[in-house]
Amino acid sequence: MRFLSETSSDGVCEQLFLLDDIPGALWTPEGAACTRPLIVLGHGGGQHKKAPDVLDLARRCVTECGFAVVAVDVPGHGDRPVDEDYHRIATENQARVEAGADPAPLIAAFQALVARRTVPEWRTVLDAVQRLDHVGAGPVGYWGVSLGCGLGVPFVAAEPRIGAAVLGLGGALASGAHAALITVPVLFLVQWDDERVPRGQGLALFDAFASADKTLHANPGKHGDMPAFERGSALRFFSRHLA
Amino acid sequence: MRFLSETSSDGVCEQLFLLDDIPGALWTPEGAACTRPLIVLGHGGGQHKKAPDVLDLARRCVTECGFAVVAVDVPGHGDRPVDEDYHRIATENQARVEAGADPAPLIAAFQALVARRTVPEWRTVLDAVQRLDHVGAGPVGYWGVSLGCGLGVPFVAAEPRIGAAVLGLGGALASGAHAALITVPVLFLVQWDDERVPRGQGLALFDAFASADKTLHANPGKHGDMPAFERGSALRFFSRHLA
Repeated sequence: MRFLSETSSDGVCEQLFLLDDIPGALWTPEGAACTRPLIVLGHGGGQHKKAPDVLDLARRCVTECGFAVVAVDVPGHGDRPVDEDYHRIATENQARVEAGADPAPLIAAFQALVARRTVPEWRTVLDAVQRLDHVGAGPVGYWGVSLGCGLGVPFVAAEPRIGAAVLGLGGALASGAHAALITVPVLFLVQWDDERVPRGQGLALFDAFASADKTLHANPGKHGDMPAFERGSALRFFSRHLA
Repeated sequence: MRFLSETSSDGVCEQLFLLDDIPGALWTPEGAACTRPLIVLGHGGGQHKKAPDVLDLARRCVTECGFAVVAVDVPGHGDRPVDEDYHRIATENQARVEAGADPAPLIAAFQALVARRTVPEWRTVLDAVQRLDHVGAGPVGYWGVSLGCGLGVPFVAAEPRIGAAVLGLGGALASGAHAALITVPVLFLVQWDDERVPRGQGLALFDAFASADKTLHANPGKHGDMPAFERGSALRFFSRHLA
């Protein structure tokens, strides 16, 4: 793990790093020196580790809860090179959707393909970050919606260190099988008029989680319209389960 | 409006009152002297104005938000006499359900009948309470689930002073038509395994609210199993919209 930069503002220390060839960002309280809860943030499709909603949530986790937060670029996103295979498949999928194909099974297949790489990558990141003195091996949560849900559900299912997860904007077709392996507390976010994930698919994914403690929040609007106050819900959820 | 008693504990003043023949309770911050937001609480079936969940929510609204809260007994509940008509209908309905009838249309018809009385009663209560110096004509919210939703939806639809409402454990069959008249912000609570309100009925009621700003929270469990943390969600919702 190689640190590229370290900056601080308003009580939040941001360290950019490379782990093997994975570019990431770690946020911690300024002056932090001991073990604390850690949130792994998975960004959305076409976004990156410092997309505005990721950054806002990361900073709030640090300032309001004292947590550490880590996010890395998904292959083909942010500071990572274009992946020729993914790029070709994504371009083909877009053409099919424009020609009238149902996007849900295409998204599901694509996310399953990418998850085969990101699940082991994110586990390696978790190993490395938890070895740092100012993070340590404390409780771990995961937050990710849209692509961050498609990649997050198999990650949470595979990784026993994750103790609570905020997921959403995903469907049962893509993630139902892995969701049935998840038993930790889940906050699941649905956009009621999601044009990419049919409502029934989203509700069926909520149904599929094996967690006894799970809560669904639904709000009107399309895939990209999730209200900012749901970031506050995520903070309270993590505080309840990890702090 | 005749006050029967006044007691204070832990910063909360509780006044029991009679308005005509309606017994009610008013909670305000100890020493309150000016206008503040007011929450009208509607209790559940078989409960009363001081049922434990009503009382807990009322006290939290006062201590955490500085609001006033009022609740009155629904006819046939709490300190009100048994209403022969309601009692007969409820007994007949129970026998029908035990004989295998679908409870949803029976509940819908019964709540519509009772609402014809409670809507004008609650509007009178609101008039009276807002004339008190320590309540005043500030913003008003409504909270009610189960029977408190069945009676609350027509109340919120009819009463322009209500600026935000927490409703839940109700279905579209009973309340859909009135819900379509509601445009204020709504937080709607669903129990995912509700044995009294079919899931599709609950989701359809959420769908029916005309409010641009509405949020659904769903949790696993039966009709009576709503988690206590949803009271915290209600407080934050009212703070966001009324404070």
